[in-house]
Amino acid sequence: MFAEIITIGDELLIGQVVDTNSAWMGSELNKAGIEVLRITSIRDREEEILGAVDDAMKRVDIVLVTGGLGPTKDDITKQALCRYFNTRLVFSQEVFDNVKRVLATKIPMNALNRSQAMVPESCTVIQNPIGSASISWFERDGKVLVSMPGVPQEMMAVMTESVLPRLRERFHTDVILHRTFSVQRYPESVLAERLEEWETALPACLKLAYLPKLGIIRLRLTARGKDRAMLEHALDEETQKLKEILGDAIFSEDDTPVEVIVGQLLRGKHLTVATAESCTGGNIAARLTSIAGSSDYFKGSIVAYSNEVKMRLLGVSPQTLEAHGAVSEQTVVEMAKGAMQALQTDCAVATSGIAGPGGGTPEKPVGTVWMAVCYKNEIRTLKQDTNRGRALNIERASNNALLLLKDLIK
Amino acid sequence: MFAEIITIGDELLIGQVVDTNSAWMGSELNKAGIEVLRITSIRDREEEILGAVDDAMKRVDIVLVTGGLGPTKDDITKQALCRYFNTRLVFSQEVFDNVKRVLATKIPMNALNRSQAMVPESCTVIQNPIGSASISWFERDGKVLVSMPGVPQEMMAVMTESVLPRLRERFHTDVILHRTFSVQRYPESVLAERLEEWETALPACLKLAYLPKLGIIRLRLTARGKDRAMLEHALDEETQKLKEILGDAIFSEDDTPVEVIVGQLLRGKHLTVATAESCTGGNIAARLTSIAGSSDYFKGSIVAYSNEVKMRLLGVSPQTLEAHGAVSEQTVVEMAKGAMQALQTDCAVATSGIAGPGGGTPEKPVGTVWMAVCYKNEIRTLKQDTNRGRALNIERASNNALLLLKDLIK
Repeated sequence: MFAEIITIGDELLIGQVVDTNSAWMGSELNKAGIEVLRITSIRDREEEILGAVDDAMKRVDIVLVTGGLGPTKDDITKQALCRYFNTRLVFSQEVFDNVKRVLATKIPMNALNRSQAMVPESCTVIQNPIGSASISWFERDGKVLVSMPGVPQEMMAVMTESVLPRLRERFHTDVILHRTFSVQRYPESVLAERLEEWETALPACLKLAYLPKLGIIRLRLTARGKDRAMLEHALDEETQKLKEILGDAIFSEDDTPVEVIVGQLLRGKHLTVATAESCTGGNIAARLTSIAGSSDYFKGSIVAYSNEVKMRLLGVSPQTLEAHGAVSEQTVVEMAKGAMQALQTDCAVATSGIAGPGGGTPEKPVGTVWMAVCYKNEIRTLKQDTNRGRALNIERASNNALLLLKDLIK
Repeated sequence: MFAEIITIGDELLIGQVVDTNSAWMGSELNKAGIEVLRITSIRDREEEILGAVDDAMKRVDIVLVTGGLGPTKDDITKQALCRYFNTRLVFSQEVFDNVKRVLATKIPMNALNRSQAMVPESCTVIQNPIGSASISWFERDGKVLVSMPGVPQEMMAVMTESVLPRLRERFHTDVILHRTFSVQRYPESVLAERLEEWETALPACLKLAYLPKLGIIRLRLTARGKDRAMLEHALDEETQKLKEILGDAIFSEDDTPVEVIVGQLLRGKHLTVATAESCTGGNIAARLTSIAGSSDYFKGSIVAYSNEVKMRLLGVSPQTLEAHGAVSEQTVVEMAKGAMQALQTDCAVATSGIAGPGGGTPEKPVGTVWMAVCYKNEIRTLKQDTNRGRALNIERASNNALLLLKDLIK
């Protein structure tokens, strides 16, 4: 069973908004056994919407459209779909009541919001639980097109509560299973060489893909077919072989982010953690606290951007800073110890580096980051030294620091 | 002049990777006067690549392709393009030398990396300054197709250094100008009503779009035509009218993120800042330090996730926590003052809230966030109270806290 996604909005084409909806939808559709063949982003122009919709309806049975349903002039998806499905907009009291309910506590009802209650006559209307744009479900020649709002949280609510269950009910779908392995310590081509023999011998129902990202390579093994038990068995067998080849370089088997793995380890061992961050500027803390329930093990963080703060709040000695500089193994070790002390935790992670673009020297070029982790009396340190630009240097240092912490407490 | 972007990779369709390349490319192409008509993401399958490429080449003059150029088996873009352009892969000593140079210090050369030196015979090859996949520039019937790697930093380097300058030279392009206004304190429909009369009277060369995002609405005014001076004049005139209507609700006229505006204000007034973060968990610090040179005004942050840390490091009184709770106006005021004191800064911003999904009570439901900003003896506070899920609650609180700080120090 194949689907296509069409996202509508000038803002996507001129690059002011990144289309995150498609990735989320692709992932959810896959879990439901529906494979996404193509994602198309187009502008808010009737002819272009009609062209893209018509192409997609010819290729696949399910077309999911997001965007262009707001109350403003640039939003024309409803009108375009009325033309495509040869129908017209009619007033829906039910949608009007829902718009009133959704907006009730927030903002006054006006003519623009009232226009949200006009819906295509020939479609099945699905109510939006948290926004004012209703959802239109069209059917033609056994094919389905669903038009949803482009606001991510509204689209997600509608997909989860209504669209995915209805699609599952309406279509019979192939079984698609994914296993994703996160691998540390391997460059892509070295990993590919290491896995070549195994990959070539994979059964026909399995396919391997490499997804490299800032010091981590995710390997995705996909199984597709009719017989779930057979696919599960093939995945189990190949997973076993892969683990024999790569050993503990595989640190996750379900695409779990490293901050979640660290959180699970800390929770399981009843440990608390703190961070002392210079160049990562709070990123590690933000990643750890992005996980619900992280207050059980995360106590806090000291972001020490200036040497003064490193000394006063983390107890880094002036002699260390003088002799070795802020970006040094000695300093990050003192920072990590200082964070454990100041925040009274069982372990800590510290970073100090030159994120760039300025601040580099011949001895310590931009991209140099020292990191340390402490767990009781044990300490490990690591130096990162490739420059990939400020944002990626920070993100990669956060990845590496979290991996270092994981390896130590594990 | 129109272009289309095609991004290739199974990982995009199953949603394991968000396509951020297209937005960046769309934005850069626009600045060069090239309008992106469509973005298409497809799988690593030869037939699908051929179909998408052929459709795009029929519609527009410029087709930019990213992805599928890695050394592994799932990467087949080069082979597919050879078939489309009726050519074959040949060995390039120049590319081979470049691959050796790029990989030299990092990883050993192997057969897979050597395969990177095979290039389509009929294309112009552009060297990749930072990666091993070379760039292919094809021409046919006056149209151009460029195939680039999918790794974002490689694509960006290649676009900036080679592809955009060559496209500008090769094609004559329309002038496209954008102005983006960031507006605070308005729900979308109220803003649209306020602007309706002005918007209806806009000259034909101008187009308005609304881009709402977590408490901020960005308004984008786009001018398109041949005569740059005329377009600039029209934009100036309408900008003046818009500013008369909205006044200081417009806080940025060039799409500058609020953390950059805050940074500029702090730098201009020679002020230093600290953050004291509970529910935002380091996000505000991370945003402030995402800006190069932020060490000039950002001294550090205390992320105080536990009450214990709020008391010990920020000096919040136990009586305040007891009487009003951690999520209260009184607590955030003491946190902000405490951060100014502990980090010895001129101003500070503090947050405390219930990010969710757990932890809500009838009096303080999930989504409740208190924030405070201090500047010398002045204090302002704000309460945010809509629940949009953990990640968005945190991001929106960070936005609002930074806006509050901006308003106070301005």
